[in-house]
Amino acid sequence: MNITVSRKAHFNAAHKLHVSQWSDEMNKEFFGLCNNPNFHGHNYDLIVSLTGEIDPITGYLIDMKFLGQLIKEEIEDRFDHKNLNLDCEEFKTLNPTTENIAVVIWHLLRKRLKETYTLKVILYETERNFVEYNGN
Amino acid sequence: MNITVSRKAHFNAAHKLHVSQWSDEMNKEFFGLCNNPNFHGHNYDLIVSLTGEIDPITGYLIDMKFLGQLIKEEIEDRFDHKNLNLDCEEFKTLNPTTENIAVVIWHLLRKRLKETYTLKVILYETERNFVEYNGN
Amino acid sequence: MNITVSRKAHFNAAHKLHVSQWSDEMNKEFFGLCNNPNFHGHNYDLIVSLTGEIDPITGYLIDMKFLGQLIKEEIEDRFDHKNLNLDCEEFKTLNPTTENIAVVIWHLLRKRLKETYTLKVILYETERNFVEYNGN
Amino acid sequence: MNITVSRKAHFNAAHKLHVSQWSDEMNKEFFGLCNNPNFHGHNYDLIVSLTGEIDPITGYLIDMKFLGQLIKEEIEDRFDHKNLNLDCEEFKTLNPTTENIAVVIWHLLRKRLKETYTLKVILYETERNFVEYNGN
Amino acid sequence: MNITVSRKAHFNAAHKLHVSQWSDEMNKEFFGLCNNPNFHGHNYDLIVSLTGEIDPITGYLIDMKFLGQLIKEEIEDRFDHKNLNLDCEEFKTLNPTTENIAVVIWHLLRKRLKETYTLKVILYETERNFVEYNGN
Amino acid sequence: MNITVSRKAHFNAAHKLHVSQWSDEMNKEFFGLCNNPNFHGHNYDLIVSLTGEIDPITGYLIDMKFLGQLIKEEIEDRFDHKNLNLDCEEFKTLNPTTENIAVVIWHLLRKRLKETYTLKVILYETERNFVEYNGN
Repeated sequence: MNITVSRKAHFNAAHKLHVSQWSDEMNKEFFGLCNNPNFHGHNYDLIVSLTGEIDPITGYLIDMKFLGQLIKEEIEDRFDHKNLNLDCEEFKTLNPTTENIAVVIWHLLRKRLKETYTLKVILYETERNFVEYNGN
Repeated sequence: MNITVSRKAHFNAAHKLHVSQWSDEMNKEFFGLCNNPNFHGHNYDLIVSLTGEIDPITGYLIDMKFLGQLIKEEIEDRFDHKNLNLDCEEFKTLNPTTENIAVVIWHLLRKRLKETYTLKVILYETERNFVEYNGN
Repeated sequence: MNITVSRKAHFNAAHKLHVSQWSDEMNKEFFGLCNNPNFHGHNYDLIVSLTGEIDPITGYLIDMKFLGQLIKEEIEDRFDHKNLNLDCEEFKTLNPTTENIAVVIWHLLRKRLKETYTLKVILYETERNFVEYNGN
Repeated sequence: MNITVSRKAHFNAAHKLHVSQWSDEMNKEFFGLCNNPNFHGHNYDLIVSLTGEIDPITGYLIDMKFLGQLIKEEIEDRFDHKNLNLDCEEFKTLNPTTENIAVVIWHLLRKRLKETYTLKVILYETERNFVEYNGN
Repeated sequence: MNITVSRKAHFNAAHKLHVSQWSDEMNKEFFGLCNNPNFHGHNYDLIVSLTGEIDPITGYLIDMKFLGQLIKEEIEDRFDHKNLNLDCEEFKTLNPTTENIAVVIWHLLRKRLKETYTLKVILYETERNFVEYNGN
Repeated sequence: MNITVSRKAHFNAAHKLHVSQWSDEMNKEFFGLCNNPNFHGHNYDLIVSLTGEIDPITGYLIDMKFLGQLIKEEIEDRFDHKNLNLDCEEFKTLNPTTENIAVVIWHLLRKRLKETYTLKVILYETERNFVEYNGN
């Protein structure tokens, strides 16, 4: 009996889109306003979803307080009120697109969770643009 | 040509999380505030999703008024403005976690729907915590 | 230069509507499902709004972290995961309608805030029903 | 490394539900208010989701500005502020149910996208009723 | 002790913007896509707010079930799944802009409510465009 | 017959909170994470509300396309995908708190609107924190 449990979190961060192998002109042409050298920023909304079997005694897949704490430690404390390009090791060379941030978040959470859980993350850069990654 | 049709519903209920085989101390330690013996409560939001083939004449998978009425009869009339632990047979011994409520709702709807439909339910306990169950 | 700053909070609670001077029949007839003796519950959303002058140095009306902490201490810690009728002194004799809860919240916050702030609260019992109180 | 990228769009349109092979009485009985001969209307919300591999250089699955422009050209310019039954070739004989509109949108977008992308659309007729189609 | 109680409702309708004293060309130039002669439509969201004194016994300003029923009778039954221009007497000569619809709704509700209530309505044509009217 | 018309807009920007007259230590102590020297960012949501008399011919208070275009020119083009501290003259010396940004926006719009309109702006820094300014 598999069930999926989801928890919403969020963090506010600055970033710019920039490919280090490219010239400034090429970056500007490709990424447009998102390449502003002085950065811009977003309120990122994150949904973390785990799939697995319900514990027949507790009726829990996972304790939501534990999951919330884990997201706080691994994701919110790391990225909230940060400049992704300047402050975060993960994006020193990796372009912080929503796609890449979602993949990084997935790996940060994956290594803290039991293997019996399947993991999916959805990351909203804005209400209109979002990305989903499940490790496959 | 398979399509999925979803309908949103909601109900407001009181509950407490409590495992009857455990001592009060163990329940309090494990479930924390959610174990308050006097209960607390939620506005539950429910999304019911059916998958199947579009009727080539009507262009419907299912009549939404019929689906809405079925959800009202099976779910809203049963759980709305109720105390899940005290008023609902389903949770006399089953701990009313969001996971267990979602599974109960899935079975209540499943037995009223034609076998040709695939059924999935998503149950929001709060805006931040939700559960998805599809019977597998 | 007056400005209004608002902060959103929430708490989950059980309650029933019941007028102690009335008979059970009269309560049931008047309040209907909301009078369920075993209680039901809600996710309450709260918006607290303060009006006053911006500090010309800091650019703040009030430090949002301070306001958030004050709402946590006075409102969330008091009402979250509680049964309003049974656990909360404020509603031992006062009927916990959304109107009365909003007035109680206003007074709890008012006595903690400087007189120079004007205070308004909006309390959502559900997405469709809400109440606004400003002390007048 | 597969990822899914989604973009939200919307359009406002009038329509009526009507099966041309049926009598007016049969249409009225089956579709009720939705068969009003003078039409009614909706704010349709659309989520377009593409799945594929992240470009290792840019960190993009697809340029969101390109995807947004494509949705504008194929869907918003075609359906926004239109009467689906009278103004749109697609629904001259096809009943504009949410199911059928979603399938039409999927095909309009599918033919403009590279085959390496998997495509899914979700169409909200209202906040409570929505449909998902992925071409299978 | 004045309090404001609000209730949300909605209706789906078709309309076109058109000033009958103007030529078709002038209408088309001024109202653009909103003048489509075949109509377009919206999901209208309505918030009805009453201000008055809390009843000291019941703790109610007004019974929400009564208010919901009144909005259903006067507004939803009248406008839902209708063509405002063709089906509704109120807009036979009055241009159904959001402004004018809000004023019409205000008057329809005003005449059904006790004079001791102050009345305000907010009408959303879309999530981005809305109008507020309080009779002054 | 006064009516209020509102239009929603948004922009994504980076900023840091910093009082130039203060030492770095004092800024860090007072503003905490919001003082991160490398900036962080937000999706700002803006609601612009105008009050005035409905034009008896058109049924408009103001043409929403005109208002939307004005907000784009004055606010979105100026602040979207910008670093408020580094890229925007308005915040070279003024601390870009939500309060100060709202006041700046109000003045930028006020000078472009006819005096017969009353103007109010609401600015959301996050879903939980927002500010309202009406020029008084």
